[in-house]
Amino acid sequence: MDENEYVVRGLLETWARAVRKADVDAVMAVHTVDVVLFDVPPPMTVTGMDAYLDQWRLFWDAQGEGVFDVSDLTVVAGDDVAYAHGLLRIGAAGTEGFRVRLTVGLRRVEERWLITHEHHSLPAG
Amino acid sequence: MDENEYVVRGLLETWARAVRKADVDAVMAVHTVDVVLFDVPPPMTVTGMDAYLDQWRLFWDAQGEGVFDVSDLTVVAGDDVAYAHGLLRIGAAGTEGFRVRLTVGLRRVEERWLITHEHHSLPAG
Repeated sequence: MDENEYVVRGLLETWARAVRKADVDAVMAVHTVDVVLFDVPPPMTVTGMDAYLDQWRLFWDAQGEGVFDVSDLTVVAGDDVAYAHGLLRIGAAGTEGFRVRLTVGLRRVEERWLITHEHHSLPAG
Repeated sequence: MDENEYVVRGLLETWARAVRKADVDAVMAVHTVDVVLFDVPPPMTVTGMDAYLDQWRLFWDAQGEGVFDVSDLTVVAGDDVAYAHGLLRIGAAGTEGFRVRLTVGLRRVEERWLITHEHHSLPAG
């Protein structure tokens, strides 16, 4: 595993832990302010950090501090652009939860990797 | 727009045209053989070119040669890794169709950009 992949995997673990703990500052710290989210619930497109956090607040209100684990992760990382895809397991504490598909896009901005795009989904029907 | 972004945008147009025309060879030519697709219909994960093409055959059988247009595209391209996100408009010829969210991951392999990952979805519910 090269250094960029190693750093991106670590950052995605940091993000998952921040979501799990509803730690708003830690979530913000790993994203660009113009992040674009395609989320499981509507709307079609969520643009910018304020709207991104509103989407998570709905999630945190519904879910509390539960399961939020990234698995089956493939990371493709260059020197300043990277993407990753895998699965998220989401659920209340102590449950099996359910799986969601995850794709993330990242850039290196002044030596720090940041998430600029997330796509979370379930198949339709 | 830098050269990498320009080439990636062109490749995504080539892909959309190939899908529109159900041109299997042209679709294959812009992907790695180990492409991973998260599609709108099930299953959760589609892995490898054979399974990827089977998924499109279902689409081509249902849809025929209709609307398949990429719009609102953001491309983030480094020297050998890139990703893009935007919307797809899909529908039968002569209709408005419907919109699907699209994220694509690409690598440059021996001087050629190729798609290694696609994520297509609708919000749930």
